[in-house]
Amino acid sequence: MPISSFQPPVRTLMGPGPSDVHPRILSALARPTIGHLDPTFVGMMDEVKTLLQYAFQTQNALTIPVSAPGSAGMEACFANLVEPGDSVIVCQNGVFGGRMKENVERMGGIAIMVQDDWGQAVDPNKVEAALKAHPEAKILAFVHAETSTGARSDAKTLCALAHQYDCLALVDAVTSLGGIELRVDDWGIDAIYSGSQKCLSCTPGISPVSFSERATEVIKNRKSPVQSWFLDMNLVMGYWGGDSKRAYHHTAPVNAMYALHEALVMLQDEGLENAWRRHAKQHRALRAGIEAMGLGFVVPEANRLPQLNSVTIPEGVDDAAVRAQLLNDFNLEIGAGLGVLAGKVWRIGLMGHAARAENILLCLSALEAVLGDHVTQGVAVAAAQSELTGKI
Amino acid sequence: MPISSFQPPVRTLMGPGPSDVHPRILSALARPTIGHLDPTFVGMMDEVKTLLQYAFQTQNALTIPVSAPGSAGMEACFANLVEPGDSVIVCQNGVFGGRMKENVERMGGIAIMVQDDWGQAVDPNKVEAALKAHPEAKILAFVHAETSTGARSDAKTLCALAHQYDCLALVDAVTSLGGIELRVDDWGIDAIYSGSQKCLSCTPGISPVSFSERATEVIKNRKSPVQSWFLDMNLVMGYWGGDSKRAYHHTAPVNAMYALHEALVMLQDEGLENAWRRHAKQHRALRAGIEAMGLGFVVPEANRLPQLNSVTIPEGVDDAAVRAQLLNDFNLEIGAGLGVLAGKVWRIGLMGHAARAENILLCLSALEAVLGDHVTQGVAVAAAQSELTGKI
Repeated sequence: MPISSFQPPVRTLMGPGPSDVHPRILSALARPTIGHLDPTFVGMMDEVKTLLQYAFQTQNALTIPVSAPGSAGMEACFANLVEPGDSVIVCQNGVFGGRMKENVERMGGIAIMVQDDWGQAVDPNKVEAALKAHPEAKILAFVHAETSTGARSDAKTLCALAHQYDCLALVDAVTSLGGIELRVDDWGIDAIYSGSQKCLSCTPGISPVSFSERATEVIKNRKSPVQSWFLDMNLVMGYWGGDSKRAYHHTAPVNAMYALHEALVMLQDEGLENAWRRHAKQHRALRAGIEAMGLGFVVPEANRLPQLNSVTIPEGVDDAAVRAQLLNDFNLEIGAGLGVLAGKVWRIGLMGHAARAENILLCLSALEAVLGDHVTQGVAVAAAQSELTGKI
Repeated sequence: MPISSFQPPVRTLMGPGPSDVHPRILSALARPTIGHLDPTFVGMMDEVKTLLQYAFQTQNALTIPVSAPGSAGMEACFANLVEPGDSVIVCQNGVFGGRMKENVERMGGIAIMVQDDWGQAVDPNKVEAALKAHPEAKILAFVHAETSTGARSDAKTLCALAHQYDCLALVDAVTSLGGIELRVDDWGIDAIYSGSQKCLSCTPGISPVSFSERATEVIKNRKSPVQSWFLDMNLVMGYWGGDSKRAYHHTAPVNAMYALHEALVMLQDEGLENAWRRHAKQHRALRAGIEAMGLGFVVPEANRLPQLNSVTIPEGVDDAAVRAQLLNDFNLEIGAGLGVLAGKVWRIGLMGHAARAENILLCLSALEAVLGDHVTQGVAVAAAQSELTGKI
């Protein structure tokens, strides 16, 4: 039997990403495709660079969208900066620190691990101890906003430590970009990657990256070629570079770039700090409702990300059944726990366009309906409402 | 001054890709985003696999879309199959054979080059000589349809040679898939990659790949880890595999997958062999018009690709000025020459949705208008018309 066109259901996406995509961005995606070397497209690429520099708060010339998902952005950072034999201090407090270790080792580097419990921030004291113990280390790598747990680490302090010990600072900002304070230049971040599908609320598939001048020099002066041809920034620079004559490298995902451009224009129009405030406000409302229901958070309040909330699953509740019912009865997606938190938490995302009042009310009332006697009934929405009506 | 939303011009895309995208595919792209682990999305992924197996004419279980452009698909094939020290015979008759060499070397392999002139097919005699001279070779790699020149190589014969000398056959089908005969199983292709933006007429950014059982065994039994985490098929198999419980690997580009699904449904509905015939017919019409104007083709007729036509630029004509005028006056994009053919040819693509009668007439009449006295006037359209009104 022939296969028919696919008509997706209409979901509300409050998991760990992709997040709800604004209709403006979906419209942009469907605009007519043009050539990737069309002068009009090249002009748009320049705007995307400028808008990304704003989002990242950087003047870095090498600020571009990698034509692949966040995992490829991570790989772009490690593949370009790590040479065989290099030592990299990798902080792990969730899934993505583990993936960083994989990356270091596949590049022929040596990963020196600094472990913190899942749900905790990276401990700067442990990091300093590792930096002291390993003067040979070239890079300090950590996750700013751990999507697997909802913990925020103190990127500013960690970057200062990296520089104090003459290391490059390599930062995973997949879930932080556009959702919480992030200042690439002020904090001295040397290499950073993010994803389109989190707080930028764009469709998944693109990974914005940025490299400082110091990192760019390291890339230009490598002794060995970058292992990946596709991700080699020496080649990508010729394509995305400031030069008016662009070298063909690969075919850019044209329509995905329209979408990213639109998402970044929306961020520019809202204002970066307003977006950070919006995420914080919606988080307070969600938290008020979650706590009123009698549920708790995994991450200590001081390190809690507003955009990714790991909520403890009450005892006796069937994790998968609840998520399935939310999806089937209310078209609401929330995320499962990963790794050591699998089955113990739900991950509720408030990212980008998903961080809005309607979503908070839907999420709280749907959870209340599905959890029944496992939570206090009839109070969550009112608790959230009192936060939502307050000033930003 | 703030940056505004981007409104692309409406072009007719008759270059080397991206090709014209059918409105059905653009509509599919803009459907609401759902989660990449949503059961509905997982069901659609299975359909994409089935449709890709049809397009590739294969039963290979490991037939999936890589979440990145064709260059990443190429890298996926080499990164998974080449280990340090492996010898690979690479045929080069254009740009992309050179990129294959880069890939082999970045994986730590040894590239044994078989050179043919740009515009010629790969010579099976030279290939056999190389296979004889290098019994240590593990892989024979070649480009089926050279996008940089428009030459078609005899993939069936080359694959048979590879197997005769106990090599895996690794094939670039970026421009061939959906445009000319391609039979992965019948011809014994072991690893193949393509692109979404050529004869599938989808938006750029996705690279369908397929690995035979023999290649899959090689990947599973590697001595060293695949250099790329993102492209490691051992991990990707867990995500796209037949297993109902999918392991999270990376976030799939959800909307891009909607578009690929729609493009493949359209190919299924047209019928693969009908699509091949349509490309051949439109090529004959273009050729009749081009030759009536007095222009010629670079590639000998026997090896000429219908979907990518390298047309010789008449003497005294300013290549870039003509392309700019076609773009500015008629919104028509044709491609420039690459490498040794830069400035000497135009590349006219008839790929997927671009391979239709209206486009042929526009292209011929616009070229006639822009080239003026450099070509015979008033005959091209009629010459094409007599081919277009014939039976497929």
